[in-house]
Amino acid sequence: MAYIAVDLGGTNIRAARCDGEGRIAARAHRPTRPEEGVEAVIARIAEAIREVWPADEPVVAIGVGAPGPLDPETGVVLAAPNLGWENVPLAERLRTLFGVPCVVGNDANLAALGEWAYGAGRGHRHLVYLTISTGIGGGVITHGVLLEGARGLGAELGHIVVEAREGPRCGCGQTGCLEAMASGRAIARMAREAWARGEPVPWPDPAAVTAADVAAAAAHGDPVAEAIMDQAAFYLGVGIASFWHIFNPTLVILGGGVMRAGDWFLEKIQAYARARAMTPDYITPIVRTALGEDVGLLGALAYARMRGAAEAPISS
Amino acid sequence: MAYIAVDLGGTNIRAARCDGEGRIAARAHRPTRPEEGVEAVIARIAEAIREVWPADEPVVAIGVGAPGPLDPETGVVLAAPNLGWENVPLAERLRTLFGVPCVVGNDANLAALGEWAYGAGRGHRHLVYLTISTGIGGGVITHGVLLEGARGLGAELGHIVVEAREGPRCGCGQTGCLEAMASGRAIARMAREAWARGEPVPWPDPAAVTAADVAAAAAHGDPVAEAIMDQAAFYLGVGIASFWHIFNPTLVILGGGVMRAGDWFLEKIQAYARARAMTPDYITPIVRTALGEDVGLLGALAYARMRGAAEAPISS
Repeated sequence: MAYIAVDLGGTNIRAARCDGEGRIAARAHRPTRPEEGVEAVIARIAEAIREVWPADEPVVAIGVGAPGPLDPETGVVLAAPNLGWENVPLAERLRTLFGVPCVVGNDANLAALGEWAYGAGRGHRHLVYLTISTGIGGGVITHGVLLEGARGLGAELGHIVVEAREGPRCGCGQTGCLEAMASGRAIARMAREAWARGEPVPWPDPAAVTAADVAAAAAHGDPVAEAIMDQAAFYLGVGIASFWHIFNPTLVILGGGVMRAGDWFLEKIQAYARARAMTPDYITPIVRTALGEDVGLLGALAYARMRGAAEAPISS
Repeated sequence: MAYIAVDLGGTNIRAARCDGEGRIAARAHRPTRPEEGVEAVIARIAEAIREVWPADEPVVAIGVGAPGPLDPETGVVLAAPNLGWENVPLAERLRTLFGVPCVVGNDANLAALGEWAYGAGRGHRHLVYLTISTGIGGGVITHGVLLEGARGLGAELGHIVVEAREGPRCGCGQTGCLEAMASGRAIARMAREAWARGEPVPWPDPAAVTAADVAAAAAHGDPVAEAIMDQAAFYLGVGIASFWHIFNPTLVILGGGVMRAGDWFLEKIQAYARARAMTPDYITPIVRTALGEDVGLLGALAYARMRGAAEAPISS
């Protein structure tokens, strides 16, 4: 009995054949190329799935992690800015193509589920997952339940407001969201602002600076870059303390490209979070994702097992 | 088959005999008088329970709502500033006295449960409850589960940070918590600050002003009081929008003394929350508590039914 897991991102499509224990038996990749339109992307997803489809065993279900917002009940991607998609019935399309159950969930929620089932979160009934990347996504397991919310739009942990009056505008339209203060995009913005203020920045082309550039300069002791990374770590710590108070979890897991900054950055986040805990009882370990690049695939697998297995497997 | 519900507050002890449908058959009150010490308060709780104890039917369980933090697993009140209690094994004490199962839960969590079982939240699998009183307490039902967290310390919705850098200090030790910006205590503080700045305040003794005084003056058009209530409504709206993004609920319920301000205050909160929603999909009704003064008792009843019923009923 096999599962097919798909991790659909703005740049890459990954597909894998897995067993229920999280072992990956085959992998396939395709570029997403969203600019070629919805049909071309669905065709490439289908190609990748065919490449890993088992020759001699039934497939229980296909699980797909996709950028939100989407409706996990119906598997319709409602709006995905990175893909340029609107109201694409992805689960139904794949179900029709492959004749097996298909479920589609929010990628950050599924990453939390993947870490819970196969990664750093095993054995925890209460955990918070944050992916700190271009934006900030979230996933929550509370009382052993994946928090998706009434319409599957929950756990948008990057969109809690931490600077209500004076914070910069967020991509979502609010001001002062955690994402606007501490994401990769926010780190790059702070670097451009420092340059515009005439601060001595170490980047040859400050208008094109990335969060990775800022993290690298901070690691080499550049004071402007250090101050920017410290600011991001402060807001991540403040946000994590709020999540401690809301969810009282036993673990916080951090993933995403920004966390590739060295351990000094993780340690700053830990220190700022601990300083904001109401009481020491709330403090938990704050660790890195254990699944790395495979977190999306294994999350999609865990989601297919959780939801897809309820429907009867169809051999094909 | 009867249940005993107890609502233990800093000022009053309420007890009631109830059936499982939320009907209250008998009530008793006692003053709490925490200054007389733990044993005196427990004795008055026991008196109130005896007064409503049924003559001719078995009691399934006793449910108690108490100020936190407490451990719902063991029913130990860990620390309750309003009561001056530390590590009081309340559930065990009442179990020994009455020979029936007893469960103790956080009062704000139980209020959410009460509204869900018997009040404004019936039929909702996802709801957020806020009590805006001297402080701000919270309760959450998500996917039909009461969110208590790993150690029962969750749903502290008043202690998410909304003004991380410049916010005033909160009673919990952090700065810029929702409670520090919008609770009854915060409203009174803003009134004293307005007076200290020399603004023309309408209160004869501005050093002793209460949130109720500020709300009354705002209702009569006093501009200083209006600005203060507007500020509180703004932060409540910002907080509710964050809870929409985190929980994607279908309803938000507001209780507590500060909500006795007129409908104009509720409408301000609604408008600020809606303005901060990422997309219209997140917007839900924001309503007042339906159970009023009985929310604590009916929450304790719902909690006794949820947890206490798992243990065998003992006639007594």
